[in-house]
Amino acid sequence: MESQEGFVQHIASKTDEFSQWYIDVILRAELADYAPVRGCMVIRPYGYALWENMQALLDARLKATGHKNAYFPLFIPESFLRKEAEHVEGFAPEVAWVTRAGAEELAEPLVVRPTSETIIGHMYSKWIKSWRDLPVLINQWANVVRWEKTTRLFLRTSEFLWQEGHTCHRTAEEAQSETLTMLEVYRQFLTEDLAIPVIAGQKTEREKFAGAVRTYCVEALMTDGRALQAGTSHNLGQNFAKVFDITYLDEDNELKHVWQTSWGVSTRLIGGIIMVHGDERGLALPPKVAPVQVVMVPILSGSSREVVLSAVRDIQTRLSKVCRVEADCREEYSPGWKFNEWELRGVPIRLEVGPRDVKAGQVILVRRDTGEKSAVPMDGLETAVTELLDNVQTGLYSKAKRFTEDNTRIVEDYDTFKEILESGRGFMDAPWCGDQACETAIKEETGATIRCIPMDRSARPGKCVRCGKDTETWVYFARAY
Amino acid sequence: MESQEGFVQHIASKTDEFSQWYIDVILRAELADYAPVRGCMVIRPYGYALWENMQALLDARLKATGHKNAYFPLFIPESFLRKEAEHVEGFAPEVAWVTRAGAEELAEPLVVRPTSETIIGHMYSKWIKSWRDLPVLINQWANVVRWEKTTRLFLRTSEFLWQEGHTCHRTAEEAQSETLTMLEVYRQFLTEDLAIPVIAGQKTEREKFAGAVRTYCVEALMTDGRALQAGTSHNLGQNFAKVFDITYLDEDNELKHVWQTSWGVSTRLIGGIIMVHGDERGLALPPKVAPVQVVMVPILSGSSREVVLSAVRDIQTRLSKVCRVEADCREEYSPGWKFNEWELRGVPIRLEVGPRDVKAGQVILVRRDTGEKSAVPMDGLETAVTELLDNVQTGLYSKAKRFTEDNTRIVEDYDTFKEILESGRGFMDAPWCGDQACETAIKEETGATIRCIPMDRSARPGKCVRCGKDTETWVYFARAY
Repeated sequence: MESQEGFVQHIASKTDEFSQWYIDVILRAELADYAPVRGCMVIRPYGYALWENMQALLDARLKATGHKNAYFPLFIPESFLRKEAEHVEGFAPEVAWVTRAGAEELAEPLVVRPTSETIIGHMYSKWIKSWRDLPVLINQWANVVRWEKTTRLFLRTSEFLWQEGHTCHRTAEEAQSETLTMLEVYRQFLTEDLAIPVIAGQKTEREKFAGAVRTYCVEALMTDGRALQAGTSHNLGQNFAKVFDITYLDEDNELKHVWQTSWGVSTRLIGGIIMVHGDERGLALPPKVAPVQVVMVPILSGSSREVVLSAVRDIQTRLSKVCRVEADCREEYSPGWKFNEWELRGVPIRLEVGPRDVKAGQVILVRRDTGEKSAVPMDGLETAVTELLDNVQTGLYSKAKRFTEDNTRIVEDYDTFKEILESGRGFMDAPWCGDQACETAIKEETGATIRCIPMDRSARPGKCVRCGKDTETWVYFARAY
Repeated sequence: MESQEGFVQHIASKTDEFSQWYIDVILRAELADYAPVRGCMVIRPYGYALWENMQALLDARLKATGHKNAYFPLFIPESFLRKEAEHVEGFAPEVAWVTRAGAEELAEPLVVRPTSETIIGHMYSKWIKSWRDLPVLINQWANVVRWEKTTRLFLRTSEFLWQEGHTCHRTAEEAQSETLTMLEVYRQFLTEDLAIPVIAGQKTEREKFAGAVRTYCVEALMTDGRALQAGTSHNLGQNFAKVFDITYLDEDNELKHVWQTSWGVSTRLIGGIIMVHGDERGLALPPKVAPVQVVMVPILSGSSREVVLSAVRDIQTRLSKVCRVEADCREEYSPGWKFNEWELRGVPIRLEVGPRDVKAGQVILVRRDTGEKSAVPMDGLETAVTELLDNVQTGLYSKAKRFTEDNTRIVEDYDTFKEILESGRGFMDAPWCGDQACETAIKEETGATIRCIPMDRSARPGKCVRCGKDTETWVYFARAY
């Protein structure tokens, strides 16, 4: 699909122009493109293959924790959105409205779903009758629309793809436990599959989901020092159960409202992968989700051509049993050009094979993450490649983890806080009085928000970084996407 | 999720009230439910698991033929739809319009995609430069919206799920070849995976896709004698290439328009599965796509309870390696009630195990399609179950094939034609003069449409079933969904 010159084109410097680098990588690696509708994107085959791999891994985790997939309508009656007061306030400003269909003006406009708590709540009220029907553990993979003012490919688009889980439980305790279970599922998915280290915690009242009692999140640090909210898990309490009348007859013969949760991650995680692992050469994909895990580049010359191509075919057959492998045997591009192209596309391992390698019964493996080269014997190549893929996966995670740790600072005074932000760098672990006025003032004065109140930390005495009031609450601040 | 009484409720007689039977099966088997938006449906977990299995099998076939998935925007600018004259005429009457987003009235209304030729054409014009970029072989799994006047669960809903393939080629021949390749992929998917026999053929000018040069289809016969268009494959020629200016620089250095195809199948195939295989007891699912292939129902009584439950756990562990197996060990339902429930849900094999079976080292297997029971030794149970699943798959196909053949009649005069339609039965293989006036008159007078001009038949002399004119074209007529 690329024009021939496409890949030798320059991408911006990551160090000097991070935002432009980010866009360049997406466009040049053909992950996505701008759509002709404001704020919308097209996910191109390479980007979509990445998403399919992410989906498959997360879907398996959702099913392993007892969830089943279903599909609910795209359109939501306006009146549904209006039922939960905080919810409508949060979402009404950014929804798309269908007002006409076929020849008719609709009596009641329809909202294109920005999230599905309301329409799913309506269905649950129909389906759930008895305590025997609980818990209900349903997930949906779908597109959603939020008409954002400023957009950026993957990170904030008018339409995006996501999964949204919606569960109902008999007790408040069970709903809280589900909320935390799903947060943990996300944490594991992010760290183990995407090689992205995260901080798990709770959102403040100001930052929680419109309609939730409590919102939990996993937050990741991008290599430009800004935070990315990577996934959220909400304890909805009985807020939606009450307005949609989702009740069940309990064993004690009393009619009770259910307790609910909802949770989601989206295609914005692709943005996270780019910004956490990418470098000056372009993308660097974690092997577990890379569409191509190993790319073979033959070094062809003169009389040895056929020998090398035959070795390539042989290796491809063997490796395709243990990994996702492709051979780039195009004649119109040089090996050097191909090296650059596949590095830009973030393929974890490059396998080079030339006439001398064939003679020596070896191939050259090159790691995308470190650039390290090694000659590896043909015998046992499957094992060597599998191990190297594991090493790249671990290597990417360790590097990102180290970066996150190096850029997480304990900050106790507001001047230091502001200085760190001016250099644009990282998480600040700072004491906060718990007052929303301070939180808002900090945002207005510095652009930093409370990313989360990290889980499971013992109380530490401190003084609010802004007002100086005594507190035992320490939170993570950052500028965020 | 069901209320306790749910499953013993009556479903309508298939023979006497086919339409009601169809809806009853869907609702009671919890495949889908009505949504609170006109004409929309909710696909419930059991129905969605069926769709996921269908998707996985078809997706593998699409990838095996070189196609890659991508994702294009839900919204299409109105002006795009208007570019291709036939296309807009065909789709404009049934599209949903987004006219407002956030606080703003949109300057140009957006169409919620009814199909994506236009927006994909726009992107292709941007991406394709050279003959080296061809062919482009892209598929998308997505939701689409068509505001239908009368709707029916799965068969015709305002929103549905589908896949749509969109390809670009260098030559007319290559596009025609792709069109027929995809028709064949659909034929194999339908017959081999869904056990649905089909007639493959070409649509008439009247029935072809709005914007296509030629439309091909696979048509299946439902057990009420009506036809279902199960999949379509369109040769688009250069119609969209010209209006969206999709050109490439050929090897001879000339700028040329590409040749295109598009093709799709949708969740309406679930309706086809229900209507082809279902019976008075409810659903009967082809094993290859059944969410549960084997359901175990233990016969529990008194002192032998633990022995039987332990056998069930053991068998489940063994069978889960070769098929999708579930054990229904609920205490609050009787075995007889469970038999009915799982028959209604169409599970291909029921496995019964009671105290005497455990002693005898055997289980009872019951086929959903024929009701046939057999005692099978525990030793080698995996093989017996795998074979029986194959037999059920083949059995369902053979039965449907026989039904289709028994209800396909050669008809040469119009009175017989009308008589057959009055009894509502099947395909009529009849001579047609090729004149659209005759085709339209037949539709108006009888409700029957030309389903297709079957592929690869040698010319046979005949006289048009309506006007009597000499012709060599024989076509399949039927009333259709």
